[in-house]
Amino acid sequence: MAIDVEKVEGEIDYDKVIKEFGVEPIEALKPKLKKLEEISLLYRRGIIFAHRDLNKILDAIEKKENFAVLTGFNPSAPLHFGNKMFIDQAIAFQRLGGKVYIPLSDDETYVFGKSNSLEEARERAYSLIPKILALGLDVNKTKVFVSSTCKYVYPLAVKLSRKTTLSTIKAIFGFNDSDNPGKFFYGVVQAAHILLPQIEELEGRVPTVVPIGIDQDPYIRLARDLAEKLNFEKPSSTNHFFMRGLRGGKMSGSKKESAIFLDDSLEIVKEKIMNALTGGAPSREEQRKFGGKPERCVVFEYFKFHLVEDDERLRKIYSECREGKRVCGDCKQECFEMLAKFLESYRERVEKAKDMVGKVLLE
Amino acid sequence: MAIDVEKVEGEIDYDKVIKEFGVEPIEALKPKLKKLEEISLLYRRGIIFAHRDLNKILDAIEKKENFAVLTGFNPSAPLHFGNKMFIDQAIAFQRLGGKVYIPLSDDETYVFGKSNSLEEARERAYSLIPKILALGLDVNKTKVFVSSTCKYVYPLAVKLSRKTTLSTIKAIFGFNDSDNPGKFFYGVVQAAHILLPQIEELEGRVPTVVPIGIDQDPYIRLARDLAEKLNFEKPSSTNHFFMRGLRGGKMSGSKKESAIFLDDSLEIVKEKIMNALTGGAPSREEQRKFGGKPERCVVFEYFKFHLVEDDERLRKIYSECREGKRVCGDCKQECFEMLAKFLESYRERVEKAKDMVGKVLLE
Repeated sequence: MAIDVEKVEGEIDYDKVIKEFGVEPIEALKPKLKKLEEISLLYRRGIIFAHRDLNKILDAIEKKENFAVLTGFNPSAPLHFGNKMFIDQAIAFQRLGGKVYIPLSDDETYVFGKSNSLEEARERAYSLIPKILALGLDVNKTKVFVSSTCKYVYPLAVKLSRKTTLSTIKAIFGFNDSDNPGKFFYGVVQAAHILLPQIEELEGRVPTVVPIGIDQDPYIRLARDLAEKLNFEKPSSTNHFFMRGLRGGKMSGSKKESAIFLDDSLEIVKEKIMNALTGGAPSREEQRKFGGKPERCVVFEYFKFHLVEDDERLRKIYSECREGKRVCGDCKQECFEMLAKFLESYRERVEKAKDMVGKVLLE
Repeated sequence: MAIDVEKVEGEIDYDKVIKEFGVEPIEALKPKLKKLEEISLLYRRGIIFAHRDLNKILDAIEKKENFAVLTGFNPSAPLHFGNKMFIDQAIAFQRLGGKVYIPLSDDETYVFGKSNSLEEARERAYSLIPKILALGLDVNKTKVFVSSTCKYVYPLAVKLSRKTTLSTIKAIFGFNDSDNPGKFFYGVVQAAHILLPQIEELEGRVPTVVPIGIDQDPYIRLARDLAEKLNFEKPSSTNHFFMRGLRGGKMSGSKKESAIFLDDSLEIVKEKIMNALTGGAPSREEQRKFGGKPERCVVFEYFKFHLVEDDERLRKIYSECREGKRVCGDCKQECFEMLAKFLESYRERVEKAKDMVGKVLLE
């Protein structure tokens, strides 16, 4: 099945998606998710909706056995709040004992034409490291690697490459013969990233969980197929609801207006939030009378997915909106203030995290 | 043009080959080849028959400017006397001022199914290093790199990959969609090997000469196209006559009986030489009467290409054969004795060269 990431837009029928991709709905694991729910609002609020083999990870947590968490970034764009959800999941698994591995795919950025040179992509990758760490990762249990410079990546990709065919890569990624050979090989490199924690020099064969967008499930399936062929543990995955773009549609790193980026100036953040698509009524009066629709509101998503840790407080915001006690202007102002507070403290942490790059870098 | 290396068999019409591949006959450069002819029997005896842009290298030699020499090995088989010809050329260029770079393509060995694991291919690659050096390279002007472990290879291949298409790779190498993606990417990796000396961290932009079999000319053409696109100097190449196999046909690393390998035991060497296809007459009597045909004799090739440095002595062997003064049995015995002497001293040099691996390895 060829997946065009750009097509996963706007409102998504997640039940249909679960069937189409053949992933498992998360509910079936319910009682075993308690620890994750306690420490992660993404689990507690049902934002993680599907998985493959997550039970392997839950068992490892239960038995206090080693496991890895992998989430990668294409350094083609700066980090936004949609990216933060992957790190938030990694942090949750890390707090439950997982070793976090973060590939930064400068090679992907370059072969897909998102940078003028590989060096430029590589620079961007390195500059992302403190920004990722500052989201709350434990530097003692985190390894970050830049794909084109980490000595383990190319040899593992070579090993995996012999276990698949060009037809398979074409079918999964939808490339054709006019595409450059770097794109095709990157299909295997990405699988190498996912399986890298399991090489002998690192963790050895361990369960590995990969939080991913459902549109990337075909890549996980490739990595799972290849894992079996090289006697690695088949990686597990989790899928979460996408955040909507600030003006509707999908949030995307290449659409600056669709997301709050972690390095947006506070002026820009304010402007973006004030212009965001809400679930509010057309006028303040109608809002007071009929109430708003928080489930359709992007601002509410920022509260629910990121800013409001306390469930009681979130429920209060929800009811106030539904009951017309809260109007969009005030709500946006509140959201902006929370974002500003978060971003100010985050930026201080980024400065501090710059000293930690050497510690986490896997070269 | 798709080239199947295996098809370059037996007797080859080299004039036709020059036209087909569009390379230049070496004669046109004649007066400028003097220095090479003085130090290399391969040039002196017309064994090098064609080239691309060799004048660039001759100019660099003349002006005492920096240039690189590149010749790579696929560590799928041990070295034989056909391989030695590439090193002999590299040594000649090195004596005239060139820096020698030798890629060992463990990745190629593995993706083309010539080893069970990448590690096995890598081990073979490392074990080749002293065997290559012992042929007479100056360790102060030689760098050897193992493709999957040298930090410069994958990034350069990624850079090159964006400048070509899968169609081009298919056309040059003749792969199809049922082949593994590692083979396709290796097409670009090979170009990266050729251009590697020119990266900033090494020699920078310099003329580079690549002694190759004519069947590999399409790979040079790819490297030349990619060089232009990345602002490298287009690599030059030289082509030499292939040695014939000991029983006729092409000498090949995968046909053990077709060649003397540098680590064959002297017993095996003797057996192979004694069974070699010569240009001799059917019987000793007819040989005495009508003479032999040294130009069709594999044993004579060992003298001409390798064992007899002195031209006068070679001419003597030639005439003695033509005139029936030399019979095959004695000639083979002489050839074996020269081989044995060469190999015994070579093997001592291999032992000594083991200490030099660290010095020449580019990691």
